[in-house]
Amino acid sequence: MQVNGERFLKDLHDLRAFGASGVGKGVVRPAYSEADINARDWLAGRMRDAGLEVRYDPVGSQWGLAEGTSLLIGSHTDSQPEGGWLDGALGVVMALELARAAREAGGPAVSVVNFQDEEGRFGVTTGSKIWAGQLPLDHADTLIDSAGTDLATARAAMAHLAGDFIDPARFSGFVECHIEQGPWLHESGEAIGAVTEIVGIRDMRITFEGEQNHAGTTPMHRRRDAFQALSNFNTALNDRLRNVVTPETVWTIGHVDLQPGAHSIVPGRATFSMQWRDRDTDRLRRIEAVIRDTATEVAEAQGMRLSFSELLGLEPVAMDAGLRAAIVEAAQKVAPDGWREMPSGALHDASNVAALMPAAMMFVPSIGGISHAFAEDTDEADLLCGLDVLAAALPALAAAHTG
Amino acid sequence: MQVNGERFLKDLHDLRAFGASGVGKGVVRPAYSEADINARDWLAGRMRDAGLEVRYDPVGSQWGLAEGTSLLIGSHTDSQPEGGWLDGALGVVMALELARAAREAGGPAVSVVNFQDEEGRFGVTTGSKIWAGQLPLDHADTLIDSAGTDLATARAAMAHLAGDFIDPARFSGFVECHIEQGPWLHESGEAIGAVTEIVGIRDMRITFEGEQNHAGTTPMHRRRDAFQALSNFNTALNDRLRNVVTPETVWTIGHVDLQPGAHSIVPGRATFSMQWRDRDTDRLRRIEAVIRDTATEVAEAQGMRLSFSELLGLEPVAMDAGLRAAIVEAAQKVAPDGWREMPSGALHDASNVAALMPAAMMFVPSIGGISHAFAEDTDEADLLCGLDVLAAALPALAAAHTG
Repeated sequence: MQVNGERFLKDLHDLRAFGASGVGKGVVRPAYSEADINARDWLAGRMRDAGLEVRYDPVGSQWGLAEGTSLLIGSHTDSQPEGGWLDGALGVVMALELARAAREAGGPAVSVVNFQDEEGRFGVTTGSKIWAGQLPLDHADTLIDSAGTDLATARAAMAHLAGDFIDPARFSGFVECHIEQGPWLHESGEAIGAVTEIVGIRDMRITFEGEQNHAGTTPMHRRRDAFQALSNFNTALNDRLRNVVTPETVWTIGHVDLQPGAHSIVPGRATFSMQWRDRDTDRLRRIEAVIRDTATEVAEAQGMRLSFSELLGLEPVAMDAGLRAAIVEAAQKVAPDGWREMPSGALHDASNVAALMPAAMMFVPSIGGISHAFAEDTDEADLLCGLDVLAAALPALAAAHTG
Repeated sequence: MQVNGERFLKDLHDLRAFGASGVGKGVVRPAYSEADINARDWLAGRMRDAGLEVRYDPVGSQWGLAEGTSLLIGSHTDSQPEGGWLDGALGVVMALELARAAREAGGPAVSVVNFQDEEGRFGVTTGSKIWAGQLPLDHADTLIDSAGTDLATARAAMAHLAGDFIDPARFSGFVECHIEQGPWLHESGEAIGAVTEIVGIRDMRITFEGEQNHAGTTPMHRRRDAFQALSNFNTALNDRLRNVVTPETVWTIGHVDLQPGAHSIVPGRATFSMQWRDRDTDRLRRIEAVIRDTATEVAEAQGMRLSFSELLGLEPVAMDAGLRAAIVEAAQKVAPDGWREMPSGALHDASNVAALMPAAMMFVPSIGGISHAFAEDTDEADLLCGLDVLAAALPALAAAHTG
């Protein structure tokens, strides 16, 4: 089977004209925007040219179907409000080239998927989550974006295209290629990441409540300053987590809200986000215990009321062993010593699809680890290497779970 | 001279009917609100009954003038959006009782002032600052409140009352009684604070700028997390200031803004307020040096860009020695060992008036140090003690700077 690298790169560059930011190669193509729908229209033509049957499901996820049982490959073409040209678009266009080349070669059968709203205008990985039965459509319809629009209203813009949901039984497995979005491959000069699992996520809000006071007349020894509690918690947590984590574990305080938030008032309340990710469920639980214990100790020491929001938990998702083996074998053939096995620190559509069928992922490098930004990029040589690896793996990927 | 404590307390309680919050004794009486203007109308009647000539200046500050040269006493009756019944209202009603009692006794001549917008709907101590020539009226007119209304529009509600500015040369000095707003007097069981100076304030915004990144795919060792820089700065600063400050020095981080402020994004920018107060200008400067050095070291160590806003500086204002001595002498007579000398950690109208004439302040206790809240209160015995001290001091206060 012969893939056409030039045709693949031309499709990738053509696609970035839809929602072009005018800044580098960046795109502005949020789910259901005019640019997003126009991009899917253009892709529909390319899918038909490749002999695929184009279908849309009720959410607006786009399908290019081969006949009979097929291997499903794809990702998503919607972008963050400030997005890169590759991100999920790479995985959709690579799937298109693989389906096209496979059809030209007489097999194996490859179908293409372009999920809707992976970037989470309405939640996270919305289109694949609904398809996988993990988010009921009637509930999803009530989710609102940051401008107050609900999903029901947004997806009405694609209602003239929508058909039924696609039967997962048509597919023997799912493979997604994506940019890494982290620095590991770029730093090590490797071209391919064979994903072992998608890490689990824990996410909650923590609130310290002390006493709001006048910042001029309240002596330091009398204060119950909620920002000081947050700062002390952060310092103690960083110290205590050292014995629990691995180099791949991450934890983040990304949002802080002080009340009342004035220069001249000792803050009485601090609410902040606490998120952590790891590939191991036990470690996620041990980290949670450290976080709760540390917050409790700081609250007691500083006379604070403490409250935790509900804990959001997404479990780690292991990639299918058979599909992984096919990718690893092809990577070693195409790029000897230019690949590694690694976890995915980000969520992807594959997290959801894995509930329906065997699923696997492959990464290509992100220059400087940059993503979700106009500056996101990958060397074209690495893009072509990724295409070649999946092309070489295709027979084994297609055979892994059939018959 | 005989003050009437019962009449004084009745006036105080009558005044809190204007803008009564319905929660405890609290009031909602922001500058230029209907409740504020009605309270001033009612006070105008009480001033006229006391034989004073009622005038308003263009800003809406209210004056009850004695004939000839007089001692000026007063404060303000406008409140915070959630205010206590005493705060500045105490100083205005105490001035009314002193002027009334002095007139009944045949002297000395006391005038009353009720400044407008001390609480800073438009800035800080607006009415007295304009009167003292430290804020031009045409500039002040462009200041806007949190709802977007400008001062020019707000003061139009009192335009039918407004006359010229009052000539400061009419007054030999200014005395302001106010609740402490801090815990020192209440904690020590003392009734009277003779204010030595109003502390100086330094205030600025500091920004750490690192790199915004994906919170799942960016390993901890690669992050330039602006919140971590802020937390480290805070910890280091608290440690280093220990050798510089006194028990009365205060410093506050009351406002924090993280960008972009999302659970799943490593914050790329942290902008926060840094305010510190002390009675000594040299110490304010030493603290500033520690703050700038600490921020610079943290920024260098963590690869952050660092920027400081313009520094807002209000110098410490010493109270007039002659007026202070009169208050101290009376306090020792009325409440032996029940008083102390102390600085004011909060700004007051006296800060501005001191630029025009000799000025002094006296505090009474705040129960639990609470102010700017419906729960603010003071024992009535302490209110009466304050009235008695100024009554005893009045002859010396009036004589201190006249011919």
